[in-house]
Amino acid sequence: MWIVPEREIAGLMTREAAFGAVEKVFSSMASGDAHNFPVIREAIGHEEALYGFKGGFDRAGAALGLKAGGYWPHNLEKRGLINHQSTVFLFDPDTGKASAMVGGNLLTALRTAAASSVSIKHLARSDAKVIGMVGAGHQATFQLRAALEQRNFDKVIGWNLHPEMLPNLEKVATQAGLPFEAVELDGLHEADVIITITSSFEASLMSHHVSDGTHIACMGTDTVGKQEVEPALIERASVFTDEVAQAISLGESQHAVCAGTKAESDINEIGAVINGTHRGRKSDDEVTLFDGTGVGLQDLAVAASVVDLAIAKGVAIEVDF
Amino acid sequence: MWIVPEREIAGLMTREAAFGAVEKVFSSMASGDAHNFPVIREAIGHEEALYGFKGGFDRAGAALGLKAGGYWPHNLEKRGLINHQSTVFLFDPDTGKASAMVGGNLLTALRTAAASSVSIKHLARSDAKVIGMVGAGHQATFQLRAALEQRNFDKVIGWNLHPEMLPNLEKVATQAGLPFEAVELDGLHEADVIITITSSFEASLMSHHVSDGTHIACMGTDTVGKQEVEPALIERASVFTDEVAQAISLGESQHAVCAGTKAESDINEIGAVINGTHRGRKSDDEVTLFDGTGVGLQDLAVAASVVDLAIAKGVAIEVDF
Repeated sequence: MWIVPEREIAGLMTREAAFGAVEKVFSSMASGDAHNFPVIREAIGHEEALYGFKGGFDRAGAALGLKAGGYWPHNLEKRGLINHQSTVFLFDPDTGKASAMVGGNLLTALRTAAASSVSIKHLARSDAKVIGMVGAGHQATFQLRAALEQRNFDKVIGWNLHPEMLPNLEKVATQAGLPFEAVELDGLHEADVIITITSSFEASLMSHHVSDGTHIACMGTDTVGKQEVEPALIERASVFTDEVAQAISLGESQHAVCAGTKAESDINEIGAVINGTHRGRKSDDEVTLFDGTGVGLQDLAVAASVVDLAIAKGVAIEVDF
Repeated sequence: MWIVPEREIAGLMTREAAFGAVEKVFSSMASGDAHNFPVIREAIGHEEALYGFKGGFDRAGAALGLKAGGYWPHNLEKRGLINHQSTVFLFDPDTGKASAMVGGNLLTALRTAAASSVSIKHLARSDAKVIGMVGAGHQATFQLRAALEQRNFDKVIGWNLHPEMLPNLEKVATQAGLPFEAVELDGLHEADVIITITSSFEASLMSHHVSDGTHIACMGTDTVGKQEVEPALIERASVFTDEVAQAISLGESQHAVCAGTKAESDINEIGAVINGTHRGRKSDDEVTLFDGTGVGLQDLAVAASVVDLAIAKGVAIEVDF
């Protein structure tokens, strides 16, 4: 079997490869060739850690396995390790034998960034010029970097609860040769695309902050109770997601569906748009919203892709297991 | 991290070590120091395989992780591989980083054998002389071998739906210096301890086949619909299990609990007997029954034990992951 340690991922995985893997697996999910297993997530009662498994099987991509790991909130302060720790394990679908083990930390950041990027490709207006960010933490820089490759943006604007973090976004914009402007939430009116990537439990982005024709990718809500945008914005928008079951239970759509103002049947799979079985954006005035919850199949897809790259570059460790 | 390939397990893991690990983790479960996570089990729609994850955390033993794998029914005929394939992954509970990967095939056989063996130690009459087997497949030989170490048995008797498999049991008996006798189900009256280890969906062992004072370990039923003994035997017996939630949903107790003839509250954890908080067998006349469903914590316990042995013997592979 093959082992690809965390330290090798940065030298192997490109945003392009992550984008391709995630777009393909969203397509497979919508066509019924891939499905996610129920998610296990447990507060283990030690180090305040959340630990669990996200598994799935993609028949089309022959990827079977899981991402295991979670959130250890004291890693950084206590040990200088990052708080999110995960590992991806792949299995041979023909035999059930373990086939690869891959460091999952950077891959998780890249596949999450790829998801909003895939949604921009398929749902944002083609003439989108201004991208707005809600959130300016570490993951926000991944989302922005990937998003900038999808349209000819000419400006980045951003808001964060703690404005002192906004230079994180400015740095990415500058690297891409674009001006950056810190705005109040009202200023997001100017944006053609908005990415929300916070870990908030209360809505920041209201419907009146958003202009007609905007595409919004909500990437922060992955747990019951979290919330980034007001339900009125969900009601107003044409909503797409990676997995409907997850969107309505723990994604951004949970609040509107719970309140009965958006029906489960009104939420569409992004894969259907990729496959051409859903037309996607219907007009330049429509607000589209991608509820990105994060599924195990994304992790398997990028991990399978990185194993191929690692073998090709001779940096995968082979173990006779 | 440490890797212990399947081929090394036979040279490392003893029945004694498996027994010790399983007894300890049953104790931790009953004292609330260890808990299993919900089980994921999926028919993946490829090779007729069943695949899934059994995870848990044992705070007392500092074991966190999962067994992943399943049943690939065509492995043997198509590829000369065994049909049950599994791998155990251990994580550092302090940081969430993967710490070990261990071949899980032989370990599963040994931990399952250890479970019935633990039940015999704590529940069978001390003067038990005759052990009866229902089932004579590959796993039955593991169960018998481990059981023989728990009492001064002087005879092995056995029944199997396909009698041509009974020599499997005779061989183990002969190796232990004991006579073996093939019996009809009625002949199991002679047994002081009975182990059932079949994959039947219909009861074989009836209450009238069993004498007062017998200890029975039902080890074959791990799925909704499977059944080895008639519900009347469950009603008659004092019932113990590894995990009550699993016993009543997919273990041997499912049928009696479903029929309402045994209450969930009447089923006791074997760990409580180990810890001395339940007296266990109340009299020499009582029929005791252990409903062994198999939990992820058993897998983690034997895997953690084998990693220590492999490091000590210098056969663990160290990978800078």
